This record gives sequence, C-alpha cells and structure tokens, in this order.
Amino acid sequence: MKNEKIPYKIYLEENEMPTHYYNVRADMPTKPAPLLNPATHQPMTAEELEGVFCTELVKQELDNTTAFIAIPDEIRSFYKMYRPSPLVRAYELERKLQTPAKIYYKFEGNNTSGSHKLNSAIAQAYYAKKQGLKGLTTETGAGQWGTALSMACAYLDMDLKVYMVKGSYEQKPFRREVMRTYGASVTPSPSDTTEVGRRILAAHPGTTGSLGCAISEAVEYAVSHEGYRYVLGSVLNQVLLHQSVIGLETKTAMDKYGIVPDIIIGCAGGGSNLGGLIAPFMGQQLRGEANYHFIAVEPASCPSLTRGKYAYDFCDTGMICPLAKMYTLGSNFIPSPNHAGGLRYHGMSPVLSELYDEGLMEARSVEQTAVFEAAEYFARIEGILPAPESSHAIKVAMDEAIKCKQTGEEKTILFGLTGTGYFDLVAYQQYNDHTMTDYIPTDEDLARSLETLPNVKLC
Amino acid sequence: MKNEKIPYKIYLEENEMPTHYYNVRADMPTKPAPLLNPATHQPMTAEELEGVFCTELVKQELDNTTAFIAIPDEIRSFYKMYRPSPLVRAYELERKLQTPAKIYYKFEGNNTSGSHKLNSAIAQAYYAKKQGLKGLTTETGAGQWGTALSMACAYLDMDLKVYMVKGSYEQKPFRREVMRTYGASVTPSPSDTTEVGRRILAAHPGTTGSLGCAISEAVEYAVSHEGYRYVLGSVLNQVLLHQSVIGLETKTAMDKYGIVPDIIIGCAGGGSNLGGLIAPFMGQQLRGEANYHFIAVEPASCPSLTRGKYAYDFCDTGMICPLAKMYTLGSNFIPSPNHAGGLRYHGMSPVLSELYDEGLMEARSVEQTAVFEAAEYFARIEGILPAPESSHAIKVAMDEAIKCKQTGEEKTILFGLTGTGYFDLVAYQQYNDHTMTDYIPTDEDLARSLETLPNVKLC
Repeated sequence: MKNEKIPYKIYLEENEMPTHYYNVRADMPTKPAPLLNPATHQPMTAEELEGVFCTELVKQELDNTTAFIAIPDEIRSFYKMYRPSPLVRAYELERKLQTPAKIYYKFEGNNTSGSHKLNSAIAQAYYAKKQGLKGLTTETGAGQWGTALSMACAYLDMDLKVYMVKGSYEQKPFRREVMRTYGASVTPSPSDTTEVGRRILAAHPGTTGSLGCAISEAVEYAVSHEGYRYVLGSVLNQVLLHQSVIGLETKTAMDKYGIVPDIIIGCAGGGSNLGGLIAPFMGQQLRGEANYHFIAVEPASCPSLTRGKYAYDFCDTGMICPLAKMYTLGSNFIPSPNHAGGLRYHGMSPVLSELYDEGLMEARSVEQTAVFEAAEYFARIEGILPAPESSHAIKVAMDEAIKCKQTGEEKTILFGLTGTGYFDLVAYQQYNDHTMTDYIPTDEDLARSLETLPNVKLC
Repeated sequence: MKNEKIPYKIYLEENEMPTHYYNVRADMPTKPAPLLNPATHQPMTAEELEGVFCTELVKQELDNTTAFIAIPDEIRSFYKMYRPSPLVRAYELERKLQTPAKIYYKFEGNNTSGSHKLNSAIAQAYYAKKQGLKGLTTETGAGQWGTALSMACAYLDMDLKVYMVKGSYEQKPFRREVMRTYGASVTPSPSDTTEVGRRILAAHPGTTGSLGCAISEAVEYAVSHEGYRYVLGSVLNQVLLHQSVIGLETKTAMDKYGIVPDIIIGCAGGGSNLGGLIAPFMGQQLRGEANYHFIAVEPASCPSLTRGKYAYDFCDTGMICPLAKMYTLGSNFIPSPNHAGGLRYHGMSPVLSELYDEGLMEARSVEQTAVFEAAEYFARIEGILPAPESSHAIKVAMDEAIKCKQTGEEKTILFGLTGTGYFDLVAYQQYNDHTMTDYIPTDEDLARSLETLPNVKLC
C-alpha cells in the first residue's frame, strides 16, 4: 500500500492488531530504578508487592527483560470491541494551517471511558479476575480512570469500589453516574468507610478531599478486605506495558503505508499515554534503528519534567505507597486548579523519567489558555472536541506544523489524541467566557515542595 | 471475504464509502404526499419553499424520481473525518444472551455531536454555503441537532443562530457549551430577539419555552434576515435522503461478508435515522428483490405510528410551517417528560408514514424503564453507553434475540445504534435511583390532541 493515497483514517484489520504487549524496558541499557519499600529503602520484593497488586501484574511490574508479553485472548476480545483505534491524517488541519507538514494523530477517545485508560483497566481487571479475586479498589479525581475501570469490571462481572475526591464527586455528578451505570460503587472521599477517612473527617470536617486521601482509602479498603486488590491507572511500569498497544497499532498502520514520523508528541501526566504511544518507536531508537524526535508536553502549572528533580519520592501525598525514582515536584506539591485533571500529578513514570534523563526525549511545558485556544481551533476544523489533557499535545503539534510553514520543511508529525472533552465543559465554558487563568509555580513554590523528598541512600 | 470469520467491527475502506445518496422515493409506487401550503391547502411550490430552504435542498425535497443523487466532494471530505461508521457484530451480547441469533448494529455515535445528525447537518450547511448564504438558523431541544449543525457551520465558516428551549438551555449547560465552542450563538427561547418571542414573553413572563416556540423564532429570524435560511434535522424528505449514507454503508459492509439481515430495527422519532438505515434495503423490498422484516420502535409515551392517525397535520406546534401528511398525534400533543428527547415528536416522516401505511413496516412501542434496563444491560456487556433514543432499538433487538433463543432460530438481526448517552446522565441517574416513571397517554388524551387536525380537502 506504500504508493496509495493515505486515507483520512487508517484502521487496521482485526488480524493486524497486536498479539503481544511490548516492554520497552527490555531495550533500555539502563533500567528504570526499582520501587523501594518506604520503611527500609530496600527494593520492593514480589512478595511485598503482592499484598497490594495481583501476582501477574507484580511479575509484569518487575520484568525488565522480556520484550514481548502475550496478550491473553480474553483481553484481545475486549480490545476488539473498541479497538483498533484510528490513526487519523489531519488533512483539514494541515489545509487550515497552510503547512507543508503532514500531521497524524492516534485517536483513543472513541470509547465510553473517553480515553486510552481502558487499555490498562481491562488488563488489570482481567489478571485480578483470573487470580480468583472478588473485586478491585481505586481512586479517581477527574473520573476517566474510574470510568474505564468500571467498564472493565462490569464486563468481567467483578466488584469495584471507587473512592472519588469529594470535590469532584459533587461537581462532576455525571462522571459519577456513568460509573454507577456500570455497576461500580462510588464513595466520596474522605468517607467514614475507612480508618484513614474517619481520621481525616474528624480533623477536617468540611474538607472536599484530595487524590492523596482517596488513594489512601482505596489502598486501606483493598488490604483490609479478603479478595480485593488496589489498582492504579498510570505511572507504573505495568500500565505503560499495557498502553504499548497504542504505539504498536500506530507503528503497524504507519509501516503499512510507508510513513515515518519525524516528531512524536504526547501529553504527559503520569506518563501512561506517552509511554504507550512511543514504546515501539523508542525501542527502535534504543536499538539504533531510527532517530525520532520525541516531545513530552506537560502543563506549565505542573512541570515535573521541565522543572522537577530526578529523585526517589513518594508516589502518593499520603506517603504510604512505595518510593519511585522519578522526575518529581515533591509529593506535597499542590498543582493549581488546572482543568487537565489527568496531568495534575507531582511525578512522572520511572520509565519515562529515565529516558528523559538520558536525553532521549524533549519536554515542553505549555500554559492553559494557549492549550484551550489550540483545542478550540482543532475542534472546529477536525470535528473532535478534545480533552484538555490531549490538547497539550495538539498545541505542540500545531506549533511544530507552523514552524514547518515558516521553514518550508515537510516534516511528518505524529501526536497522541488521548481522549474527548465531553465531561470537561466547565473548562471550555471558562475559556469561552474569558475567565480562564494561567498559573505557573514560582521557584520558591517548587523549592518548598521539593524539601519533602525522602532522604534515600541507595545501596 | 464471504467465508472469512466476521470481525467484531467492519469498517469500509474510504473508497467503498457511498458516492451517491439513495432516494427511496424513486422506488416507491405510491409517493409520499406533498407538503401543503397551510393557508391555501395547495401543494407547496419550489418558489414558496425557497423562502425558507435553500434552492438545492428544495430540489431534493421535491424530487420523487431520481434514485441516486451525487454527494459533492466537499461533503464527502467531511464524511471522511468521522465516517465510515463501524458495523459492529455484537458477539459479547449474543454470548451473554445465549442466543443463536446473530446481532449487528450500525454505530453512529463516534463523533462529537454524538449521533447520526451530523450526516444531514453538513449536507444542509454545504448547500446553503454554496448558494452564497451567510448563515443558518435552527431550534434545538435536547441539543444533538444543534451540536451537529454547530460543527458543520464551524467547518464551513458559516454563522449559526440556535434557538434552544429555555428549559433545556438552563438544565443542559454542557450541550449549550459545546455549541458555543463551535462558534454558534445560542439563544434561550422564548427571547426578545424576535417578534414572536417578545409576544410570548409578554403573555407568559415565566415560561421555560417549547420546541414549537423555538421553531417559530428560528424561522422568523431566517425569513427576516438577508442571507439566512432555516434548517431542520428530521422529518423532511431531504433529511432522509442524506441519512441514506447509514444504510448504504451498512449494506456494502454486509454484502462484502455475505450477510443478509432477517430483521432490521430502528428507533423512530421524526424518522431520520430509521429512514436512513432502511433506505437501500427498503429499495430492494420495493423492487421485489428481498424480503426483510422492518421494525420501527417508538416510545409508548409518544406513539405516533402505533396509535396516531395518518392525516395532514402541522409540522410545528406554532402551526406556521407547511402541512405534511403523516402519522400524527396532533400538533398540540404534549408528550410526557420522557428522556428520549429525540423521539418526542408528534408526527413521523411522510416517507416512513406512507411505507408503514402500506404495511411494509411493523411498528412497536416500548416503555421507558424497560428501555433503560436494556440500555444498561447493553452498556455493561458491549461497552458503549447508548443514547436513550437508540436504546429503544436495543430493547427490541434484544427481545427478538431472546425469541430466537426460545425457538432456536438463527436469525440475523440488524439495528441502528444512533448515538451515545454522554449528555443524558440525568436520565440514567433517575433509572439508577429507581425514580424513573412510565407514562402512556390515554385514549382520551389522544382523541383530544387529534381534534386539532386541520380539515384538509385534497384536490
């Protein structure tokens, strides 16, 4: 098909969909640093991790050497209901921008969860079900991860307890309602269903909660109830592994038409989307087979890669989870009320942090109003109303395409369009009403939150 | 491909997408009755219709003989951004229902408008733009049509004034916000921007408006402003013509794999989705080439086909639009506050009305809570959260599949999944909270609303 005209959307055939996840760690000369036990500062063992995560997922979390891991048939059946996702040629955007660049995006928003999160949700739920577990617990802020996991658990007939930050629970009743429709029990956090929740409620009766508190409640419920485990939607190695289906599909589709991207762009919060999109391309780069320009895009209000420190830190604000070595702003960094809820995380996936530290990726931070300006421009010409998170990648893709217009270069730009903005209309309303503001933490803000980094002496 | 395993989703290649709309009227031995001038009761002439609609659309509205009408390249380019839509084999639903039936659905919800409405919105906006018009006006209740038209007008850089029923404007701020993001100006109706709006506001200062009033305001704005026309999202012959892309894609996909449906099911409000889905299949039936069982599904609360009368009636509650011969409950029929906003119309497309009257289609009415039960069942196994309207078709498709389980028949069932329920979560919440009620109009209710039928003597 190499000489055919590229269609607007490339859909793989079912039999061209990936049969294996790709584990980029296998090709990394320097592996991501191991998770540490927060008490002993020793690498977490499989036994320790199995108290929180199910066995197969622990195995995947610790596996730094197996390049390809088979995707079980049951997960592949579920994928076939909403995948392959389209690789879209943005002909209309190119025309409007009058750029010689060729722009492609991999669109992960065409499923009810509205984002790529479903790729890992079904995998995590499947392995837990196979182990004979009864149910799962998790936390959710904006609600995309909670929705994805609700869908996966409904399909597998598993119980799910979602602790939803109370502020979001009250302000986003529709997200909550989708989860209920999929049979999940959604509890506003802090709640009186856990020890830690009761403690926080007693100390701060009027609190609207925080993600850190919701994580603590979800973990407590899981470890104190027989047959339950806690699951997480980003940051972890296993999540990036599952999300590699995004990149694998993209690469197969591009290879089919002889397309080679020059620039690959993704938004980065915890790193699950970017890590998944770039995985097979980064593998080529690490093996010396290609030379791509990778760009991670983060909000200026939560700039872990561009202004954080590469160090061991707590993954949660409650400081009860294992320590991870990552680019971090400090676990008590409180991001401004930016509308890209999925990018408001103080740290970054250890895999991506290591790759970035080795100079294999560029990182850029962008401000919120500029992101929404790009989002609206994109929506009006390409049709799709993008999620605020995804729009960070749109902004940089458009910037690069405009550069090509200036220089005349015909670069091929690929970006990840992770999801839709159908549940983010309060944000669009602020943008349309011109009441949206930008916020950039000062150097003093960051110095203060970085003071809480744990003092880890590596053995 | 006839012996291949059917994939979960059949996507046509870009070059297999329809190049022509199919006009089922060409194959109808008895044509749908013409629109009448409400004052003279004479058939509306092209000249009269051109005051409201643009020239090309009037031509399409009146054309009962041309079977295939070319789709302009510009419309086809727009279609390529969100079409072809997938024809989905509901393997998981079949498995869960333990039915020998084979279930397929054509899914029209994977675009930001969330429904099939976009297929006609872009066509109507395109012909208006080509005629050199500046802008369009329309009304919207639930908001799907308004959203679709906003997207089309943003793409073509046309002005759009949407009159949105004030009650919906206030209760559905997110729908309103999507339209604003696409650059439409959205006015709560009744408003002080029109004569009729000011009159109604003076008489009923606290009113939350009605669809009839919003239509009247949109029409008044269009006819009193140079360069504007009014457009409508259903009922009209031209709309069914544009929506034939749904059925044409479905038939091509089925033919490719040698699939022949036994039963074809669609929800029916004004008839645009059902008319579009069945068009090419009905064409075969009318030419004596096939024998399908067509089922139109309507809400028990608004049963125009199953309990209405086939007669000339006003299309709008304001009684200012042309008269159409259709199955109707009377133009002042006020449906209960059913959540399927798109099915709350007192009449039915004249094309479908004629086909139904000739016994070529079955019609069934279903109650709201049973519809939501089917919707939730479907969402949990097939992943997609369906729109309340579409769920009427799901309900009957499941009923037919369960019958097959009982009889052992391996029927092939096709239904139209017209859209997603992401903006209908108040309805799902009522269902989840068990506060949803059913409402069926009494015979007295219907007799009363049918009293207002105009007394038309056909010449």
